[in-house]
Amino acid sequence: MTMRTLFPPSFSPPEFQAGWVWLVGAGPGDPGLLTLNAAHALGHADVIVYDALVDERILELAGPKVELVFAGKRGGRPSPKQRSISLKLVELARAGHRVLRLKGGDPFVFGRGGEEALTLVEHAIPFRVVPGITAGIGGLAYAGIPATHRDTNSAVTFITGHSVTGEVPDNLDWDALARGAPVIILYMAVKHMGRIAGKLMAGGRSADEPVAFVSSAATDHQQVIETTLGEAEAVAATVTPPAVIAIGPVVSLRPSLDWLGAATQGRQLIPNPLGHQTDEAM
Amino acid sequence: MTMRTLFPPSFSPPEFQAGWVWLVGAGPGDPGLLTLNAAHALGHADVIVYDALVDERILELAGPKVELVFAGKRGGRPSPKQRSISLKLVELARAGHRVLRLKGGDPFVFGRGGEEALTLVEHAIPFRVVPGITAGIGGLAYAGIPATHRDTNSAVTFITGHSVTGEVPDNLDWDALARGAPVIILYMAVKHMGRIAGKLMAGGRSADEPVAFVSSAATDHQQVIETTLGEAEAVAATVTPPAVIAIGPVVSLRPSLDWLGAATQGRQLIPNPLGHQTDEAM
Repeated sequence: MTMRTLFPPSFSPPEFQAGWVWLVGAGPGDPGLLTLNAAHALGHADVIVYDALVDERILELAGPKVELVFAGKRGGRPSPKQRSISLKLVELARAGHRVLRLKGGDPFVFGRGGEEALTLVEHAIPFRVVPGITAGIGGLAYAGIPATHRDTNSAVTFITGHSVTGEVPDNLDWDALARGAPVIILYMAVKHMGRIAGKLMAGGRSADEPVAFVSSAATDHQQVIETTLGEAEAVAATVTPPAVIAIGPVVSLRPSLDWLGAATQGRQLIPNPLGHQTDEAM
Repeated sequence: MTMRTLFPPSFSPPEFQAGWVWLVGAGPGDPGLLTLNAAHALGHADVIVYDALVDERILELAGPKVELVFAGKRGGRPSPKQRSISLKLVELARAGHRVLRLKGGDPFVFGRGGEEALTLVEHAIPFRVVPGITAGIGGLAYAGIPATHRDTNSAVTFITGHSVTGEVPDNLDWDALARGAPVIILYMAVKHMGRIAGKLMAGGRSADEPVAFVSSAATDHQQVIETTLGEAEAVAATVTPPAVIAIGPVVSLRPSLDWLGAATQGRQLIPNPLGHQTDEAM
């Protein structure tokens, strides 16, 4: 166990005041991806309202008197409705507690942090947002897939596979999304992968385009399956959520950049997978 | 100064081995957004190669014998060429050092981490990636702007304003990008904002669409300017880089979600800025 200062000496973490709610991102899985402010908040919270996606080891950072409230889905039972979670935060803050709302990933990336914050504002509860590392960036990095790479894409689009109704978002111009960013990263899209892949191919994306499913990203149970857009529907049927899905040329960098596979499974990394590089330029 | 355990008791941080390079994201600015693994790496590195965008307080976490190598732009002088930085990492690792390459934001989001990693692979240097919080998510959160919000966007696109050549990326279908994700977040785009705004409006985005420039995001010098797409070129001329730029309806949430303005400047937050909410749904 490492004993050391948590913060740089000339930096003071923000005070977690009574009656406040902190909306905190826990990152994609690995407890080592927790931020210093999140660790600080865990140590000072009176109540922690947490989701199923949070690694339980992270909760070891909580103080001995903390109250833990589970707000996720468990054992097939439906999760509490969003409105009731938001109102629970209001109630706990009104009771004078330091309330930590701990979410997997980042609260503002398909994390419903904005909705919870709006309810807090509605009830005049003061709050702070502590961003976390989102699975679509940090989780993919643990699979050796960069969200962007200078030789492949100057743009990347993140899409959720679940709309407000739980269906594939139909208010999006999928044709434009297909022709837009060369790399598309999907959240919560395993269930609807077939329809999404169909829309993207109808919009001009090739059936041969590389795709990676990264389930339980950045955890000890991480699994990566590489396939193509044309095969993605069939592969999705074999994938256990939660998973993040990368579509595009960055997936082809994985044989070079799978540092985790190299470190833990002795994978031999292959130089220069794209056959060229612009590393000479500024 | 807080003394406490840096990691949860049942979690062991990865060992920083001699001869390895760790490519580490420092987050958007606030030292409190550093990850536990990044702080761990800082305390164990023999050499730290860092960029201009890294808060110098973060370097206080380094051990007393560390060698600091600055690799960013300073005083108008050009930054070292990317290739020479990558080869410096190889040389330092070959000398048996624990080499920490510290970058602002996330190494894999317009951070050239992929290029550096490919050079390491080419020279058979083992490496690890430690993701960081990217400015386009965490920096915007400090301005009260969520990258996604359930009522406004199921998709978000991140674009860099600088291509390999330093110009606006011309290999992108700007018309499709304009019609794709309702929210677009730009990196390194202040200089070319006029051309980019023009391309987006030519693709159908409204001149009235809300835009926010967030410069020095998540630092003590953060400045936020709200404007419209039609006025963005003129406003960009007044903005000091580095800045991240948000385009789309999430900017309209700022009067409600500017928690930092509320905490530090007494800003009164306004409930329900969009006039509706779906918080009742699951």
